[in-house]
Formats: sequence, C-alpha cells, structure tokens
Amino acid sequence: MIRVLFAAGETRWPTYRHALPAAFARAGLKVDLFTETDAPETVDYIVYAPGGTVDDFTPFTKAKAVLNLWAGVEKIVGNETLTQPLCRMVDAGLEEGMVEWVTGHVLRHHLGMDAHIVNPKHEWNPVIPPLARNRKVAMLGLGELGRACAGALAALRFDVIGWSRTQKEIPGLTCHSGEDGLDEALSQAEIVVLLLPLTAQTENLLNAGRLARLPGGAVVINPGRGPLIDDDALLAALDSGHIAHATLDVFRVEPLPQDHPFWAHPQVTVTPHIAAETRADTASDVIAENIRRGEAGEPFLYRVDRQQGY
Amino acid sequence: MIRVLFAAGETRWPTYRHALPAAFARAGLKVDLFTETDAPETVDYIVYAPGGTVDDFTPFTKAKAVLNLWAGVEKIVGNETLTQPLCRMVDAGLEEGMVEWVTGHVLRHHLGMDAHIVNPKHEWNPVIPPLARNRKVAMLGLGELGRACAGALAALRFDVIGWSRTQKEIPGLTCHSGEDGLDEALSQAEIVVLLLPLTAQTENLLNAGRLARLPGGAVVINPGRGPLIDDDALLAALDSGHIAHATLDVFRVEPLPQDHPFWAHPQVTVTPHIAAETRADTASDVIAENIRRGEAGEPFLYRVDRQQGY
Repeated sequence: MIRVLFAAGETRWPTYRHALPAAFARAGLKVDLFTETDAPETVDYIVYAPGGTVDDFTPFTKAKAVLNLWAGVEKIVGNETLTQPLCRMVDAGLEEGMVEWVTGHVLRHHLGMDAHIVNPKHEWNPVIPPLARNRKVAMLGLGELGRACAGALAALRFDVIGWSRTQKEIPGLTCHSGEDGLDEALSQAEIVVLLLPLTAQTENLLNAGRLARLPGGAVVINPGRGPLIDDDALLAALDSGHIAHATLDVFRVEPLPQDHPFWAHPQVTVTPHIAAETRADTASDVIAENIRRGEAGEPFLYRVDRQQGY
Repeated sequence: MIRVLFAAGETRWPTYRHALPAAFARAGLKVDLFTETDAPETVDYIVYAPGGTVDDFTPFTKAKAVLNLWAGVEKIVGNETLTQPLCRMVDAGLEEGMVEWVTGHVLRHHLGMDAHIVNPKHEWNPVIPPLARNRKVAMLGLGELGRACAGALAALRFDVIGWSRTQKEIPGLTCHSGEDGLDEALSQAEIVVLLLPLTAQTENLLNAGRLARLPGGAVVINPGRGPLIDDDALLAALDSGHIAHATLDVFRVEPLPQDHPFWAHPQVTVTPHIAAETRADTASDVIAENIRRGEAGEPFLYRVDRQQGY
C-alpha cells in the first residue's frame, strides 16, 4: 500500500478526496490517502498546494516526491526544508475547460440562444441563424489557449481570424499582428474573443476606439484577463447598442462587486471566473502518473529544476 | 447573361433574392435573376420549389434545367409538362446547422450557462463544471445527422454513446442497438439527444419507462421529431425533478400552441424548429454550381432519375 498525504488544504479536500482515489484506481495503484498523520516517516508522497498544511518537510524522511497541485511553484521552491523531488502541475483539463467555455459561449451567441432561454411572451419566431462558416470570429491572443480555442471553432467551420502582437503562422488560420492587423481583425469580427496575456501593452486593449472598430451588433467574449477591457468604454458601447452583448468571465476585481454596473446590465453576462481552472480529475491523473513513475523507478513528469526555479 | 427564373414562391424570395446573386458572384456567373417573365422561351434555368409559381413547364422551350430548392421532388416528378432535366437539392448547410444547434445546446447544458444568463440575485457562485470527457451524452439515432453530431461532440471530447435500432459500426463511437442497448445507453446518459426518424417503432420512444431509466438530473434535447417523446411523461419527469431540463426544437403541433405546458414550464426551453433548415446560402451555391455545369456542358449534380422518381 502506497501512503499518500494530502497536504493541499481543506478547501480542496472535498473535491480531491473523490478525484484522487478515482485516478489511483484508473492507474491501478493501491493507495492509502489521508490528510493527517502521526507517522510522517511512513509517507511515500505528499500532494501539496500553497496554503496547505505542511511547511516543514524535514520529518518526511522517506517521501519520494512532493507533487504540487498548481502550475506555479514560486511559493515552495525556496523552502529549505524541501529536499525531496518537487513536481509542478501541467493540467490538460485547464485547456480543455477553456475550449469548452469559449466554444459554448460563441455558439450561444451565434445561435441567438438567449432569445429562447428567456422568452416570457412565448414567441414562436423561427429566425434561422447563419451558418458558422458565414460567421466571423476574431481570436485575440494566439498562445496555447487561443490556438486551442481557434482550432475548435475552426473545426465547427467558424470563419476565425487570429490576432497576436507578434506575427504567428498557424496552419488553417488567418493570422494578423500589430496595430494595423488589429484594426483589420476587429473591423470584421461579429464575435471577438479575448485570450491575451495581461501586459503593459495589452491593458485596456479593448478601449473606446477599438470597440468603435467592431461592426455594429458585435459580441465581446472575455475569458482572458479583466483589465484587457476598458470597462467604462464597454458599458458606453453596450448602452449605445453598438455592441450587442458582452460575456465576461474575468474582472478587475473578483468576485465582481455587487455595485458594478456589469451585474445589472441586460446585455452583459457575468460568469464567475470558471473558464480556466485546474481540474481535479485531470490533475489527479497527473498525480497518479507521477506516483506510478516513482514506484516504477521512472523519471517524474514536470520535475522542478531547483536552480532554475521552475 | 444567363437568364434565371425564380419560381420557388414569394415567401422564399426575400431570402433568395440576396443569397442567389451572392452565390452566382462566388461562382463567377453573370446572371439576370427575376420572378416573372413575359418571355418564357428566353429562360435558361428555373429555380423551383413546391408551392411555387410554375405548374406548366411547356412554354420554357429553351430551359436547360429545373433546379429544385428542396431535397424532395415527389410533388414535381410526375408533372408531364416537365421535359427538362430536373435536379434535387442536397444541402450541406442543413447538416452543418444541425451540428451547430446540437453542439451549442449540449455545451449550454454541460456548462450550466442558464444560471449565468439568468442570475437576478447577481450570485458569484464559481461551480466548475466537469470536463466534457467526463460527461456522458447519448445520441439516439445514427443516421447522417446523428453521426455528424456525435462526431462533433466527440471532437470536443464528450463521452458519446450512440444508439440506433439496428447495430451500426462507427469508428471512435460506442454503438448500442436494440431494446437492451437502449436501456444501457439511457442508464448512463447525463444528456440525451434525439435524432431518430419518426416511425411506428420510434413514436413515443421516450416514454415514462425510458425517462425513468435516465439518471436523475439528466437533460433531454430533441431536434429530431416531436412525437419521439411522450409529452405528458416528459412533463411529469420534469415536475418530479428526475429530468433537470428539456430543450425541444420540434413538436407534435407547430407552431407550439400557446396553451401547451412546455411554453410556461421553467425547465423547458422551446426553440422554434430552427435546428434543421435548408440554408439559402449553401442551397444557392448548389444552384450556382449546377448552372455553371449547365453552361460548361458538364453533367448536373443530383439529377433526378425520372424512372426511379428521385
């Protein structure tokens, strides 16, 4: 029996107490999983996250690895009591979840679903939407998440236009870059999706001038970072009717304060920062795979180089 | 200049008066398109649909083809005045539109979107949905439309279970058939999509007993045919909470009568028979391609065999 200490905090335990055993079973591992122990010298692996229950790794004399639940290890990598191998998390689930959220909300706006979901007058109004192949979607940001979402939308035949600060070459995708490229992408976009990193260059990228570039009736979808959008400019564009709807998952302050006008605006949908999350199921599979590797004497996945710090 | 008579009826003209010229332009054809003529002997092609404006094809002495806008030709194939070649419609847009509608509504329920679209208390409640790979979707019906939808859902990594009356073998899809197979598919399905043809065997397929087979909290999506579902049994299952939601595009009587309980039920979404429609854009491309072929002396697409009747 492999002994695994879950030291990633009690808020995560209700999820991982189910997800980890399921992953261990899928991997064929026999594991004793617990959150507290009087015998640290008997622990084989520690599942860790910042804010968890272990700060001093010294008593875990036999532990073969510390398995971090998150991608970032900046809070643990400098811990001098940590002499065991440390592995970070690379979670396929985060990207998959983002693709699902983006594809779902693009289809929602494409199909005009809201008019059917909320239809108090019971109107039978068979407006046939255009086909996806005749719907232009601009994907701003072509990192891993932007590419994955653009690919999923293109697979559904959406007419996807990509934009990134520096020119990218992506098979099957029209890619623009730079200021002129942004004007070009925005001027065509019926739906615009923001998946840019937040930098000094991208803060307030979607300001009044750039919102005005979008065709009338365009929809803004932001699962990237809140400050990519100038909130006041977006509200003004929604009020004027130039922008038909905004679906936003990220905000300058989260949870979104109750007095923020986004909450009450009829043309804004707020989703509570759910588009990109480490997923317990897929993260647990990574933990299980690393325990399997440790038991088989194989090298760990995503092992942190303590010199480099990641 | 090619002379084309649009004889498919005035209700369709507002759409096709734009869609056909756009398709002709894409095909590089110079066309004079009109809905009436005093000189039938000058007409090169007739765009036709049942209920249109031409019954006697005798005066169209130079017409090279009659191009039907719909797939079915049963209303015209027996017309003895029709001596010109007759072509039926095969519209890629109908299948694409169905895939978009089904994928969109599956993602809507998968992501729990309705709680964000209608959120009067402005609740920030970050419930992370499972990944598609952990969401079981049963596709009942594996004809062309069912297969296309199953494929699109599988591409998004949904765990798709197929069912059809007779056993099918489809790469990458678990296929069940027969009564036992239906029990098996239903017992696992968190979301069930109905894309079966309507026959004596499939009428009321989703009755009280089969609804009870679904796991608690399942969602029913019907873009197939209204009578596949026993309406009263569905309403009872929704009222009991066993079925969480039904999204329905087709009904026994359409438009859905204002006094039908589906309209007012909070757990039912009615969409007005929009999932599968011949699309003017793609249908117009087929018309344009056949005119191009006619002008180039190439064989027509989808030419009807008058002996066989289709």
